[in-house]
Amino acid sequence: MHIAIIGGSDAGISAALRAREVDGSAEITVFLADGFANYSICGSPFYLSGATPNWRDLAHRTEFGNISLQTDHIVRGIDIPEGNLLVEHGGVRRTVSYDRLVIATGATPARPPIEGLNLPGVFALHTMNDSFRVQQYVTESNPKTAIIIGAGYLGMEMADAFTRRGINASLIGRGQTVFPSVDPELGIVIEHELARSGVNVVNGTEARAISRSSSGAAVKTSTGRTLTASFAILTVGVTPASTLAKDARIALGPDGAIAVDRRMRTAAPNIYAAGDCAQTWDRLLEHYAYLPLGTTSHKQGRVAGENAAGGNREFAGSVRIQVVKIFDLAVGRTGLTEAEALRAGFDAMASGGTFLDHKAYYPGVRELQIRITGDPSTGRLLGHK
Amino acid sequence: MHIAIIGGSDAGISAALRAREVDGSAEITVFLADGFANYSICGSPFYLSGATPNWRDLAHRTEFGNISLQTDHIVRGIDIPEGNLLVEHGGVRRTVSYDRLVIATGATPARPPIEGLNLPGVFALHTMNDSFRVQQYVTESNPKTAIIIGAGYLGMEMADAFTRRGINASLIGRGQTVFPSVDPELGIVIEHELARSGVNVVNGTEARAISRSSSGAAVKTSTGRTLTASFAILTVGVTPASTLAKDARIALGPDGAIAVDRRMRTAAPNIYAAGDCAQTWDRLLEHYAYLPLGTTSHKQGRVAGENAAGGNREFAGSVRIQVVKIFDLAVGRTGLTEAEALRAGFDAMASGGTFLDHKAYYPGVRELQIRITGDPSTGRLLGHK
Repeated sequence: MHIAIIGGSDAGISAALRAREVDGSAEITVFLADGFANYSICGSPFYLSGATPNWRDLAHRTEFGNISLQTDHIVRGIDIPEGNLLVEHGGVRRTVSYDRLVIATGATPARPPIEGLNLPGVFALHTMNDSFRVQQYVTESNPKTAIIIGAGYLGMEMADAFTRRGINASLIGRGQTVFPSVDPELGIVIEHELARSGVNVVNGTEARAISRSSSGAAVKTSTGRTLTASFAILTVGVTPASTLAKDARIALGPDGAIAVDRRMRTAAPNIYAAGDCAQTWDRLLEHYAYLPLGTTSHKQGRVAGENAAGGNREFAGSVRIQVVKIFDLAVGRTGLTEAEALRAGFDAMASGGTFLDHKAYYPGVRELQIRITGDPSTGRLLGHK
Repeated sequence: MHIAIIGGSDAGISAALRAREVDGSAEITVFLADGFANYSICGSPFYLSGATPNWRDLAHRTEFGNISLQTDHIVRGIDIPEGNLLVEHGGVRRTVSYDRLVIATGATPARPPIEGLNLPGVFALHTMNDSFRVQQYVTESNPKTAIIIGAGYLGMEMADAFTRRGINASLIGRGQTVFPSVDPELGIVIEHELARSGVNVVNGTEARAISRSSSGAAVKTSTGRTLTASFAILTVGVTPASTLAKDARIALGPDGAIAVDRRMRTAAPNIYAAGDCAQTWDRLLEHYAYLPLGTTSHKQGRVAGENAAGGNREFAGSVRIQVVKIFDLAVGRTGLTEAEALRAGFDAMASGGTFLDHKAYYPGVRELQIRITGDPSTGRLLGHK
């Protein structure tokens, strides 16, 4: 029994470790495109901010027991009828047979239609090598200003990270407020924290074109403004890395992610998929969606690994939990925002306010901003931020 | 419509406020035995430790809107057929009629069979006046040592409070470890924190007799030891203050608490009970039990108040959540301990370990000791600490 796993980040390594627990005798091989097995890409902003000075600390683990880790091995093709992978290493290709396969190829940074994304001084951030490129640039060039394109959690984290390194950051988002994963009422609270810390927030705007200017990068926006800074970084989200699966004619969902069931089975025999390359069961809306997130990848990987090793586990699904810390503000969400609930067809309303984290008489009390989303006709709680 | 409420702590005030919300026109009267409406008795240890220097800050609120608060009014009797209360104020008794009645008389400190509980230098702690007595004694007599009888959450909090005031505390408990509300494996973790802070813990021991000695109080224990200290304080738990209900022939449970259903109705017409004087629906074991706790009182009070005002709300029940902070250690529990689960007939087992509160690479990581209790035959999670 040979369980092959393509990808060595959260989903791939979780699948390998769980398969090892379930079947002590199977041969388990993980093919990694780079040399960084089980590194936390969620931790990159903290490496770049200086909070985690040593990038090696970003490894979730460094011991993998009786699992074969093949670093710098790129899988070029899947031959489903033969049960083979075409694997390339050091320019040499060979065929590797599998009995069960877990595809955990992750995601790649989305590349919206912006001119100039390939210019020098324009970065994306997803792999460890991406992190090293940004680190090297910031360390060597000592830039004074940055434009961050995309005001989701990664964009906000990078605004935080750059600010801590003395770089003046502008954060461009297309939403009404930053972090559209929460209601705008809470987005404004985050914006106050960003502004207090010196971040320049530009909402309701999309980047259209990037060019080189004397000072570095010039970003032209949909509102006709041009922002200039030493460099620009793209943080507009990710798209599933599903080309390998697509080329093997494994069915994808409408969002381009590999179609899976709750056992993380793809439409192809003996092939599972997990993590940012695959669809996720949305427990609230009861359908499959593309909800890439590290914690989900980890759980899906465990399910895929268990089932690849002969188990029969179901992934419980995502309730869209996200947590992010921006300067001194911790932000969490679960369930649906008001806008998401309305889009999903709920007769939703949201309400919120400012509360204390514990009784006022006990020292150290802090204010919490809380909003809940519900369906007034049924009393169902839909979301909480 | 006159809604009368006996008791002005968590349950009574919650009942009054909720009844006010539901019925804007009813007359609502709260009879309080003392002058401290809606004070947090849970906050007493923090007043006595000095963390909350001003006792007035212990009031959950000081504005009660259109509710009549009758302080220093002691209800001496309930005439159910006539729908009357016999109320005493300043030595004068009068009759007050009610349409609906909420009994929220709370609890009194348990008085185990220990000789000498009435001696000077022996304190209990439940009301604001109890707190003032202890505060006055500690402030005026400047004691150096204390014996705390009872190692539950209040005993541990008082050990913390006295230590912060420079009083050397001994904590006597009859369990295998302190705080039997958690598994002994976690009790030991708390004991390390207590010992580190200078508290002398004596387990497996009950106090038998207290006498006056030259140095203050001498406590003789069931193991034959005699401990001496400047004073002693009794923190062995509470018993329901249900005498008034019992005298009115309102049915009590086997534990002496007023029998209620999940609508907080007593067996008597138009009479509700809530809080530490009443039984609590145990959501896990699906029976009524005596589980006195401030947060439960608050919720039960809301249900009783809503129903007294014509509503039809059910109390969801308690899952036995408790949280306590001892020096630098925060302790929480929910569900059942292993011992509680075994007593309840579950085929239970518990397991635990030491975990990190967040990813190790991010600064400020702290260790968490976690134990879960489950039923291996069904996979049901029974408890979490």
